[in-house]
Amino acid sequence: MVKGVLLDLSGVLYEGNRPVAGAATAVARLREAGLPVRFVTNSTRSPRRKLLEKLRGMGFELADEELFTPARATCDLLAGKGLAAHLLIHPDLAEDFEGHGDAEAPGAVVVGDAGEYFTYDALNSAFRLLAEGAEFYALASNRNFFDADGALSIDVGAFVAALEYASEQRAEVLGKPAKAFFLVALDDMGVAPEDAAMVGDDVEADVAGALRAGVGRAVLVRTGKYRTGDEGRGDPAPSHVADDLSGAVEWLLS
Amino acid sequence: MVKGVLLDLSGVLYEGNRPVAGAATAVARLREAGLPVRFVTNSTRSPRRKLLEKLRGMGFELADEELFTPARATCDLLAGKGLAAHLLIHPDLAEDFEGHGDAEAPGAVVVGDAGEYFTYDALNSAFRLLAEGAEFYALASNRNFFDADGALSIDVGAFVAALEYASEQRAEVLGKPAKAFFLVALDDMGVAPEDAAMVGDDVEADVAGALRAGVGRAVLVRTGKYRTGDEGRGDPAPSHVADDLSGAVEWLLS
Repeated sequence: MVKGVLLDLSGVLYEGNRPVAGAATAVARLREAGLPVRFVTNSTRSPRRKLLEKLRGMGFELADEELFTPARATCDLLAGKGLAAHLLIHPDLAEDFEGHGDAEAPGAVVVGDAGEYFTYDALNSAFRLLAEGAEFYALASNRNFFDADGALSIDVGAFVAALEYASEQRAEVLGKPAKAFFLVALDDMGVAPEDAAMVGDDVEADVAGALRAGVGRAVLVRTGKYRTGDEGRGDPAPSHVADDLSGAVEWLLS
Repeated sequence: MVKGVLLDLSGVLYEGNRPVAGAATAVARLREAGLPVRFVTNSTRSPRRKLLEKLRGMGFELADEELFTPARATCDLLAGKGLAAHLLIHPDLAEDFEGHGDAEAPGAVVVGDAGEYFTYDALNSAFRLLAEGAEFYALASNRNFFDADGALSIDVGAFVAALEYASEQRAEVLGKPAKAFFLVALDDMGVAPEDAAMVGDDVEADVAGALRAGVGRAVLVRTGKYRTGDEGRGDPAPSHVADDLSGAVEWLLS
């Protein structure tokens, strides 16, 4: 029996700016069944304040501390190491790095989905710091994503790959599918990985990532970025495939 | 005995806008010794017209056809395949692609060193064509280079890596160290690879690349991008290391 559930945001709870039908009710059902829930997202274009607002505006109930973002994981890591970072991120995310970013002598480079702010000069500045020995962290490693307009677009992982190639250094990825990212959220709800479940629309970062981190079950939903055939692409493969979050919760509670 | 010589341009014949001392005389000595010479460059920010002007302005004598650039190799390849390409290149290089570029329905994407023109939107346009199945060609794969101001800067290879990561497709690199690039220049002077020599300042793209293509000898010069210890970084290792082109020619003729 599952004792706690991790939920992805984009593509599972909502698509663009529309909630997935039945998703808020499905989350409420998990809580009514006495299961702790944590929200784990790789979204690095919106600050957590806006993500919380968006979720609540769509009828999802959650406490601030139940939301886990790569920015939160990164600030914890920087604080632990006593490092200040040069931030190559979207300006909207800057508030999540208050007190950790853009020092005069940064010991680390942090790369998020900067979108249109990925200019040659911005990438070159980050590259030069890496060439001088700065530590290298990535908020996520996603290859591409479906933009609000529904067209496939290049994502942060590509720019991380560019900096890795130029600097001959490997970035440490702090969002999904990093094992540590899942473990912090699991630890927060006091549930052992093997007793937990993950629900996501990304067969690699959400599903295979969670299973590799030791999570007992991972459900792939056919919403969001899901495309026909994705169920066969994960390694390990999904424990179950559901039409949407309602279907996933139905299966988890059965 | 060497029967023909391939010469790199930037870092061997000139550094920035200054000729390397004695380089023009060294090229003349090769010709006086009866050796055919070809010029092979990965420069993808200047059109061949400007490269020829620059070389002649510095006192180097060469025929137009003796200069081999990745753009020339790419146009030959596109023509052979009957493909038109979407060009993600520096606008200064556009004249070298006349008749091959920016079609309505491009069957290929060609990436050169676009410098500041590597914007998110430009990369995303190229990515979307690759995701739809366009063929993927790179003019070069260099990781970084020393800018005119002497600072290390991110080079075209990083942006190729970004597109490869996002699209999960591999680019075919058409400049050095691609074997075909060396072979076309060797064939043009009618010299078998094993009878030829290459002189360059890049231990990987020039030296190891030429040796892997079967070129008999490759000399690394300590000008241009050469940094202490480079002689130990090539695989295969340089046949010889010289202070500059004059020293390389001295060794080749001895």
